[in-house]
Amino acid sequence: MADADKRGGAAILYLDDLDVGQRFSSGSHVLDAAQIKGFAREFDPQPFHLDDEAAKATLFGGLAASGWHTAAVTMRLLVQSGLPIAGGIIGSGGELSWLKPARPGDTLTVQSEIVEITPSRSRPDRGSVRVRSETRNQHGEVVQTFTARLVVPRRAASPSDNSSAESAPARSAKG
Amino acid sequence: MADADKRGGAAILYLDDLDVGQRFSSGSHVLDAAQIKGFAREFDPQPFHLDDEAAKATLFGGLAASGWHTAAVTMRLLVQSGLPIAGGIIGSGGELSWLKPARPGDTLTVQSEIVEITPSRSRPDRGSVRVRSETRNQHGEVVQTFTARLVVPRRAASPSDNSSAESAPARSAKG
Repeated sequence: MADADKRGGAAILYLDDLDVGQRFSSGSHVLDAAQIKGFAREFDPQPFHLDDEAAKATLFGGLAASGWHTAAVTMRLLVQSGLPIAGGIIGSGGELSWLKPARPGDTLTVQSEIVEITPSRSRPDRGSVRVRSETRNQHGEVVQTFTARLVVPRRAASPSDNSSAESAPARSAKG
Repeated sequence: MADADKRGGAAILYLDDLDVGQRFSSGSHVLDAAQIKGFAREFDPQPFHLDDEAAKATLFGGLAASGWHTAAVTMRLLVQSGLPIAGGIIGSGGELSWLKPARPGDTLTVQSEIVEITPSRSRPDRGSVRVRSETRNQHGEVVQTFTARLVVPRRAASPSDNSSAESAPARSAKG
């Protein structure tokens, strides 16, 4: 199946439209020191996220974004452009890894891949999808991976509800 | 070993001071709708996090905090009062679960427990610690769990560096 971003990024995808291996790419976000310090003041007030000089003496060797800031920026990129799921991106959790710190001046982008699709047995209107999202800086280095468990709705059984379905495989909406 | 919060919360703990099963409690944070919408506008702009009316028609049935907001508030509570680790709370990732949404008016607190301690083989000055943190609302319901992998320094071998070590077991700082 073609990458969703090649479809123009506007398609709204139901469980029935997803395939294992399908990939998505987000737009980009440029981090700066003010954003890093602002997030840290509110949510992660530690010296390596707040102060350039103090950060030099730490494990990070310089100002670094809070991992939770990297995660939040990743979510914004996914919501705005990186993962066009019907009903929105609703996660029940996942496995998070911070491989490198994000730094002032970094341009972050997110590539995502569908790794597992599990229709719900008890709720025929939805399913669970595991999506692995890699957040990279401008050098192509992966700063974060998050393998999320998402709740994704199935397309309604009614044939009239097919407004963005022209490329969707014709699967039954019954679980 | 006594709970760290019973020590007055001010102790700064090295790897050598931690034991599996040791528990910590944070202070509390009261979420309100303005915080929820403010975080969402910046990082997770979806209707169920932005607008009370629109949220009613979604899976959430009403305004709910972004899971990343819950995670960020949890981090603030850990940094400010919930996990007094030497050198700060430095994580390389972990397993995140959102069990219930956090709502406007919720008072969040975090209880943490050390679940695994692994001295580094290659770096005798540090180790890896797995900490499970449960974030609860005022009804005692767990809204989030995060089992983090933290990098924790070992106490320096020098016997002069024992400013907060009176209750620490006498372990070698060599790995």
